[in-house]
Amino acid sequence: QPHRRKWDRWLMMGIIGLCMGLVAHILYVIINSIASLKYGTTRWIIGHSNMGVAWLFNCTFSVLLIAAASALCVGAAPEAVGSGIPEVMAYLNGCMLPKVFNIFTLAVKFLSCGLAVASGLPVGPEGPLIHIGAALGSAISQGHSTTMKFSTSMFKRFRNPKDKRDFVTAGVSVGVATAFNAPIGGLLFAFEEVASFWQQSLGWQVFFACMCATLALNISKSALKAFTGSGQFGWFDQEVAFEVQAGMSFSSHVLAVVPAMIIGVLAGLLAIAFTLLNLKVSRMRDILTSHLKWGRMWEPCILAVLYTTVCMLLPLFFPCTPTECQEIEGVLFCETGLQGGSGISSNRTGLTNNAAPSLPLYTCRVVDTVVSTGNSTTWYPRGDSIMPDLPGNGTHTVYYNQMATLLFSTGEDGIKQLFARGTHKRFSYTTLFVMGICYFLGAALCSGSAISSGLFVPMLMIGAILGRIVGLATVDIAQGLGQTWSVETFGPWTWIDPGAFALVGAGAFMSGVTRLTLALAVIMIEISSDVHMLLPVLVAIMTAKWVADSLSHSLYHGLLEVKCVPFLLSEPISKYSLDLVPVSYVMRSPVVTLKEHMKVREVTNALRGVSHNGFPVVRDSPSGQVFVGLLTRSHIMSVLQRIVVAGSTDVEVAWVELNRKMMDPVMAQRSVHEQQMVVLSRELQSSLMGSSILMEGGGLGGGRGRESLGGEDEIEDRVVDLTPYMNTSAFVVSDSFSLERAYLLFRTMGLRHLTVVDEHNHVKGIVTRKDLLGYRLDEALTRAMGAHAAAGTNGRENRRQRGAV
Amino acid sequence: QPHRRKWDRWLMMGIIGLCMGLVAHILYVIINSIASLKYGTTRWIIGHSNMGVAWLFNCTFSVLLIAAASALCVGAAPEAVGSGIPEVMAYLNGCMLPKVFNIFTLAVKFLSCGLAVASGLPVGPEGPLIHIGAALGSAISQGHSTTMKFSTSMFKRFRNPKDKRDFVTAGVSVGVATAFNAPIGGLLFAFEEVASFWQQSLGWQVFFACMCATLALNISKSALKAFTGSGQFGWFDQEVAFEVQAGMSFSSHVLAVVPAMIIGVLAGLLAIAFTLLNLKVSRMRDILTSHLKWGRMWEPCILAVLYTTVCMLLPLFFPCTPTECQEIEGVLFCETGLQGGSGISSNRTGLTNNAAPSLPLYTCRVVDTVVSTGNSTTWYPRGDSIMPDLPGNGTHTVYYNQMATLLFSTGEDGIKQLFARGTHKRFSYTTLFVMGICYFLGAALCSGSAISSGLFVPMLMIGAILGRIVGLATVDIAQGLGQTWSVETFGPWTWIDPGAFALVGAGAFMSGVTRLTLALAVIMIEISSDVHMLLPVLVAIMTAKWVADSLSHSLYHGLLEVKCVPFLLSEPISKYSLDLVPVSYVMRSPVVTLKEHMKVREVTNALRGVSHNGFPVVRDSPSGQVFVGLLTRSHIMSVLQRIVVAGSTDVEVAWVELNRKMMDPVMAQRSVHEQQMVVLSRELQSSLMGSSILMEGGGLGGGRGRESLGGEDEIEDRVVDLTPYMNTSAFVVSDSFSLERAYLLFRTMGLRHLTVVDEHNHVKGIVTRKDLLGYRLDEALTRAMGAHAAAGTNGRENRRQRGAV
Repeated sequence: QPHRRKWDRWLMMGIIGLCMGLVAHILYVIINSIASLKYGTTRWIIGHSNMGVAWLFNCTFSVLLIAAASALCVGAAPEAVGSGIPEVMAYLNGCMLPKVFNIFTLAVKFLSCGLAVASGLPVGPEGPLIHIGAALGSAISQGHSTTMKFSTSMFKRFRNPKDKRDFVTAGVSVGVATAFNAPIGGLLFAFEEVASFWQQSLGWQVFFACMCATLALNISKSALKAFTGSGQFGWFDQEVAFEVQAGMSFSSHVLAVVPAMIIGVLAGLLAIAFTLLNLKVSRMRDILTSHLKWGRMWEPCILAVLYTTVCMLLPLFFPCTPTECQEIEGVLFCETGLQGGSGISSNRTGLTNNAAPSLPLYTCRVVDTVVSTGNSTTWYPRGDSIMPDLPGNGTHTVYYNQMATLLFSTGEDGIKQLFARGTHKRFSYTTLFVMGICYFLGAALCSGSAISSGLFVPMLMIGAILGRIVGLATVDIAQGLGQTWSVETFGPWTWIDPGAFALVGAGAFMSGVTRLTLALAVIMIEISSDVHMLLPVLVAIMTAKWVADSLSHSLYHGLLEVKCVPFLLSEPISKYSLDLVPVSYVMRSPVVTLKEHMKVREVTNALRGVSHNGFPVVRDSPSGQVFVGLLTRSHIMSVLQRIVVAGSTDVEVAWVELNRKMMDPVMAQRSVHEQQMVVLSRELQSSLMGSSILMEGGGLGGGRGRESLGGEDEIEDRVVDLTPYMNTSAFVVSDSFSLERAYLLFRTMGLRHLTVVDEHNHVKGIVTRKDLLGYRLDEALTRAMGAHAAAGTNGRENRRQRGAV
Repeated sequence: QPHRRKWDRWLMMGIIGLCMGLVAHILYVIINSIASLKYGTTRWIIGHSNMGVAWLFNCTFSVLLIAAASALCVGAAPEAVGSGIPEVMAYLNGCMLPKVFNIFTLAVKFLSCGLAVASGLPVGPEGPLIHIGAALGSAISQGHSTTMKFSTSMFKRFRNPKDKRDFVTAGVSVGVATAFNAPIGGLLFAFEEVASFWQQSLGWQVFFACMCATLALNISKSALKAFTGSGQFGWFDQEVAFEVQAGMSFSSHVLAVVPAMIIGVLAGLLAIAFTLLNLKVSRMRDILTSHLKWGRMWEPCILAVLYTTVCMLLPLFFPCTPTECQEIEGVLFCETGLQGGSGISSNRTGLTNNAAPSLPLYTCRVVDTVVSTGNSTTWYPRGDSIMPDLPGNGTHTVYYNQMATLLFSTGEDGIKQLFARGTHKRFSYTTLFVMGICYFLGAALCSGSAISSGLFVPMLMIGAILGRIVGLATVDIAQGLGQTWSVETFGPWTWIDPGAFALVGAGAFMSGVTRLTLALAVIMIEISSDVHMLLPVLVAIMTAKWVADSLSHSLYHGLLEVKCVPFLLSEPISKYSLDLVPVSYVMRSPVVTLKEHMKVREVTNALRGVSHNGFPVVRDSPSGQVFVGLLTRSHIMSVLQRIVVAGSTDVEVAWVELNRKMMDPVMAQRSVHEQQMVVLSRELQSSLMGSSILMEGGGLGGGRGRESLGGEDEIEDRVVDLTPYMNTSAFVVSDSFSLERAYLLFRTMGLRHLTVVDEHNHVKGIVTRKDLLGYRLDEALTRAMGAHAAAGTNGRENRRQRGAV
């Protein structure tokens, strides 16, 4: 009666969450420090010197950061390039890409992402955080590293594919949870997009991990605040990233669905364009830079120069916009009904909106300042300093630069500006359009170049700009319709607020690119702390998804295709009705089979003969060779190694033994098959610490192990008993089994091989993941259908003839 | 090349959502009208006459409502009793209970639930709404009703088990979505608790359905408001059920985790007690009332009398509590720092909290009223009227009854009072404890009695009371620690608010009873529109789940066990390690098999012989009879009926034909097997519109069809060809297949039968759902283990002897 130990799994989940919370916070601190250093210095130079010097400084600074970020990626770990989300998805789908969860990759990803985001390029840290989370989940749970030659025995029992997969899933979730401070959104992200296999109990554990991550992130945030004296330890103030200002949350209206649908359609189309551009650039990059190594560093550096120049120069073409600000106790409170302000600027918005200090003045200045101290009112002329240091409260007319507010700041600040409510006309159509085009092109070009970079911030930004444009148009229409649609006061029409539509647009564009729905909706709630706009957000997300689905793949699936990963979608894509097709149409036949007792020579010959990794084991019987189990290449290699090294294949763990070992709670967690393999590999590890070539050969293709095995004839003639190693719980299906169900079996059970047998249990063929991928499937089916149709016609002909007779 | 039509599925989802939104709103209107009539009249009587008359009126009113609700359930549809959630869960798990989605059940559920909730018993409408949603999903999508003899051909293509299941899942989600106005919570509820099978694409469709439901609900709400003149059409004002008051949303603190964990532990323990009490009562009820029909009506009626009496009498034992209220433009704004009010009653809370008009005065009165109009201040003595009709603004000292505020109102109002923030000492420990005990017992006794009633409102209430008690203790401790922990002002310690902890407690208690985590967390956000308290809520939910999990089943699983439903949990429960056990240990053997060509007599004999519903079909071969497919009892019955009626079994649709029919997009959606069955049943329906006895017999057990078949010897000797009807895509596993994987296969693929074969593909046994249920599994395993262990020992003995020789 085994004790099913669970607590250490929960503990591990908690540890992963806590670690990730800390790591994410450190990353954010690095990014914010460098970025504020960069922007602060540049602003100071603009104020005290001329644009040329500022440009030179900004450019040099950015290029140095990007060069460092790129050098790390190119030199140390090329796997760290890009967001890493497709790689993680591929792993969780069942296809392992090499070195993705390497400890080097993790470190490089962390540093490269920090430097790249801080440089001001249109990239975000969220994607890399997801990859870092996954790598952390793998590293902590496995407790050993091949790269670092480090190993601890503490969590040995998690060293099996299933547990590793679970912890990587948790890592992805905590990555998202810390990126957006959205624990539930993180869990749902992993569920909806990334994980291919999902179990209820895993969901609960991931939930716990996300909770711990959010806790750790917020504690460390508050600790930093307490350390710098701007807060109290333990108080989770301002934890919500893009929180709706207090008092600015308003009820939705059924009419809000109309602009939401328009935003959805536009966002869907824009997302398609973004995806296609992105994939095109990726393919071009593959072609142009595949032969280069250090040369790949040029691309991000050139992009950095270009983008920084655009960021510096473009705002100069935009005029300064005046706004009335009230200074109360050192904080500027500005009116928001800008440019015309017909009925928009009410005291309500003026009171709560204290975003003014972050409105960059750029080359604009404070024109005049009215200071009222007690009874005396003093007028100050336009000064040299950006913000005159004044006693008491005063009224200022501040001129700010619309373009610089968005373009000359970090992505997060820009998004905050766009999401700010009650700021109806802060940004004009021209600003938003130009900014949108800049960011769109910049993001599409930067993602995937030789730095570690994510796309969530760019997606939020582009979506928010789109939403704000539609929102601005809605405001204009409402104002055109007259007084009844009074936008300014609290009431049924408050929802006509470009800031609220920016949120809707951000959700819609992300949905169009990633095809997430549920996770996005929750993330949108969690980052805005407002459920009142939920309905328009849902409508826009759904519309964008429909539009985008009808035209192309999601970006991640597109990238996986570019990388040629055999990724199985949740449903098969084929022009045929797979329900009606028997599995025999796509299986590979004939198959190389093994017998239960074979000579080593025969085994190695079999391995050399074919490229796939699953071998059905058959037994001789009166009716022919019947199927009894499945062996994978890596397991056979382990067995063969054992023969070479130890001279025998006697494994301790046989069926009867296992029944006795059921008392061991750790062992009992695993399946028979896995346990045998674990014992085997453990023994090998202890006896084989020197001959690492063999170990590696075991994990890889058949060709490599050849030279080490073909040494002695004596060994080659020995007979191996494969019975204890084969998987007797392997699935078999009959050749008339429906292809759709087989696909489902692959996907839900995470299979790699499926043996096809006839009605006498003779092996007919084998189906692998690759046989089920879209294009292969259709090719095979077209071929088989043709043959079948011909046969069918013949058959019918025959029957007709017989009928005639 | 078939066109995979999808839009009609989306359309259907939208229709289900919209209908459910309307239905839910009508239900809420009915409940609110009756409840406000009841409470309003009773309050008027208390104010104008004596308690006795009020009690008499209230009691009579409640008992009449409950009697009507109960009579409907007992008389028309006994399936409508209870919440209906376990029944829906059972259906989605793969076990159909009769008449659960009947149109009568739907109507009775609707009316009975409305009457029961309005009567004031501690029951809620949420559970029934979920059942109504599921029934609606089934009714609309199937487009025909056996009960009503009504049928439309519009959505014929959804008349198959898979699509019906999908639409029922959507129905569950929209039920929750409309119950809590929480679209995402609804979706997650279905995912986490109810649905056993889940596909990504289904998730998106359900998402859409939930969105439509919320939209419909809010539009109809605003339409009603516009009609009654209290709002504008289309404006979704006050859509959030238990919204945190504006300005009362505050940041969390790491220390908030401590009381949250305490709440979690207490809620978990309380939830266990609640579950066990509930199950105990259910079992007792089954024993005592199983032989009764109309007699079952007594229970809810007696409960109604008792509970109404308690609600009326208990508040009399509680003193009147004074509170200072300010009347501004006809609305009372009351101070909230009640009883001592040391530092709690700040102007901040006083400004925003306008809950006062809903604080029932009960037998208490306004003592004195200070009215200041202009410069004159007038003092009014204590009057007879409950609220003196005064001009201008004034200050009142209002005495309210703590107990009546909670007990003498609808559940929803009570919860709102408990959730209200900035009302630290509105309720004393005594009130909360007494109220908690009353509600706990009342809810446990009422649920499952012969009315249609849900448990969500009681769970929220009990949890909120628990949370408030802990919150009150936290306030006292914080006050005891002195000024540094200044609870009253905005700052790091604002979180010490019993209203916020009520939310935490509600989540924790619901988690303890239902074992939901994810869905609950999202529902809690959606009903409070506040993510700041998310972290404590998550901690409490997780803690409560852990505590409860370690001690008992969830309530729903317990109820399913009481109802003897073969429900498969997401993971098998067994004291053995199922990984190590071959499936042959639990299979039923020998199996009755059919041959491809059989005489009718033989088929009927086979059907009569056994009780299970799956029959493997075998073919003679040189090595014995090999497995070729699976037939279910209902399909065999259909075939036999066809013989009786039409005299032949020639079905149009054979394999070759189907390949041609792939052009038909509707047909191509289905699997070969289902299509054949659809064609078959359609033909039967058209030819058999008279003989409905046969039709019914086909759907049920084997015994019924006997008399109609055994008529003529001529028919009995005819040979049937079963080949076209059998399911050739049925799963088979070898007898050494691991039981754990078999369980997973059953659960993820929704199987009902699994054929076990040996290595020559000879049928060895069959596994059904019932064989995998906890207690059966363990029984079978203990037996098999015993036998195996004996054999194993012998085997080892033999080997040792051989070794010795």
